[in-house]
Amino acid sequence: MFDKIVECVPNFSEGRDLEVIQKIIAPFIKTEGAKLLDYMPDKDHNRVVVTVIGEPKAVAQALIEAAGIAIENIDMTKHKGGHPRMGAMDVVPFIPIKNMTMDEAVALSKEVAEELSKLYDLPTYLYEKAAASPARENLANIRKGEFEGFKEKIKEPLWKPDFGPSEIHPTAGATVVGARMPLVAFNINLNTNNIEIANHISKCIRHISGGFRFVKAMGVELTEKGIVQVSINMTDYSKSALYRIFETVKFEAARYGVQIVGSEIIGLTPMEALVDTAKYYLKLNEFKMDQVLEYRLLE
Amino acid sequence: MFDKIVECVPNFSEGRDLEVIQKIIAPFIKTEGAKLLDYMPDKDHNRVVVTVIGEPKAVAQALIEAAGIAIENIDMTKHKGGHPRMGAMDVVPFIPIKNMTMDEAVALSKEVAEELSKLYDLPTYLYEKAAASPARENLANIRKGEFEGFKEKIKEPLWKPDFGPSEIHPTAGATVVGARMPLVAFNINLNTNNIEIANHISKCIRHISGGFRFVKAMGVELTEKGIVQVSINMTDYSKSALYRIFETVKFEAARYGVQIVGSEIIGLTPMEALVDTAKYYLKLNEFKMDQVLEYRLLE
Repeated sequence: MFDKIVECVPNFSEGRDLEVIQKIIAPFIKTEGAKLLDYMPDKDHNRVVVTVIGEPKAVAQALIEAAGIAIENIDMTKHKGGHPRMGAMDVVPFIPIKNMTMDEAVALSKEVAEELSKLYDLPTYLYEKAAASPARENLANIRKGEFEGFKEKIKEPLWKPDFGPSEIHPTAGATVVGARMPLVAFNINLNTNNIEIANHISKCIRHISGGFRFVKAMGVELTEKGIVQVSINMTDYSKSALYRIFETVKFEAARYGVQIVGSEIIGLTPMEALVDTAKYYLKLNEFKMDQVLEYRLLE
Repeated sequence: MFDKIVECVPNFSEGRDLEVIQKIIAPFIKTEGAKLLDYMPDKDHNRVVVTVIGEPKAVAQALIEAAGIAIENIDMTKHKGGHPRMGAMDVVPFIPIKNMTMDEAVALSKEVAEELSKLYDLPTYLYEKAAASPARENLANIRKGEFEGFKEKIKEPLWKPDFGPSEIHPTAGATVVGARMPLVAFNINLNTNNIEIANHISKCIRHISGGFRFVKAMGVELTEKGIVQVSINMTDYSKSALYRIFETVKFEAARYGVQIVGSEIIGLTPMEALVDTAKYYLKLNEFKMDQVLEYRLLE
């Protein structure tokens, strides 16, 4: 059915006018081979995050069409909201899900960025795995200055767009396109109300303070439950595995006499993150994804 | 894409004539909404096991068409093979995979059996979860006597078919149709060559000797590897969970100072069997299947 599957999570700078949002998401609903999984308008941020999945070509085509509608309907000169933003279609990550390498997702993101620039006279930047230089990997670096500041920033040689003109689109600003691994939001609850323990464990596991390469983490108090949580963003579950983080949190907690009392995944996760976990605990060392019945249905 | 998903594993009494086999499987390939996952002709058994999956209506329609082709092309009066059999299309289990209750799978199997009898003047029996009485739950009970013996057996009041005439189809015999849970073939390897330990553990976990309700198990020697295996058939992973069997084998082995060194799943498994395992070990107590990205694609 699907040879390759890509996920795309475009963010559009409209979170209040539901009529405009409906227009923007329409291509994801009507395009054969693409499937709209979710869209979450946020009034405070004045922004909508759309999750779509499907065949790479279909998803790309729907995205390009949705971009045109966003550019036509969103005027960034009038946009206000709590979230940093630089364009009508602000940022577009492509995420390889099935039978697709990161290189292929990068190639797709470049094609889409180039096409967007050509069709809509829109400056586009490549970020994350598609970035042309380390300075452009981080979205926050690129977006700094936001729509209002970009009028000038875009003229600096350092911030010449990867595609399109060296001046912002007058009403749609500029767009950042790229490729990244799926994120898994994974939280682990501890049977203590001591936030210092959750903070200490977070430091042990997160990349920035010496932990796993693809882990971001921080301690959070769950005041209603009277416990604390290690709140984790797994930025590449295929290299920093869920079970490995879980076991590490478990043995770090043990030194304080603290136990894990539960965990949660917020939102969606690729099947493989959980299959890898089952493989580890059951010592299923030869198991292949295509032994999963439902996986075969997606072929 | 698929609201409900059913799996169907029909067994046809032809394992040698590949031309006939191609004709029989053609409906599973061409029917929209059905997907042929596998077919395994066995020359010694003179039998082919077909695995197909998809929308219940599409799968049922393809199955009925394939049955007609099998009846037309297989002459049981000339059939020889090492496997017990009573009909050209010998047995047809329907297995609920997604958004489908066992009751719905039972209803589907009854509809199909009735339709087969009507269309092809074929006696059909219902077995497993679709059985009208406990005596008909077990396939081996129904099939006893095989094609040759069925000429007489079918006339006994006790063996009156559930649908169709009380005499066998002259060349196609009779067919058994029913519904069951997916089977998971799960083997656990131990770091000992003592088969008695594998046999003892098998007895601890299997239903027949006091173990888990939906577990069949036996000890097997892996002579090349110089170890033994607990070879398990999980007949309902949703009630006798994989992780529970694994942990039980682990603690039973421990009394002999023996450890689990690996495990394997042979063939296909529903995603849920592995997601349940990951949920247990990660204490992911609130996790829902529709948080799995690929699962959403099947909607």
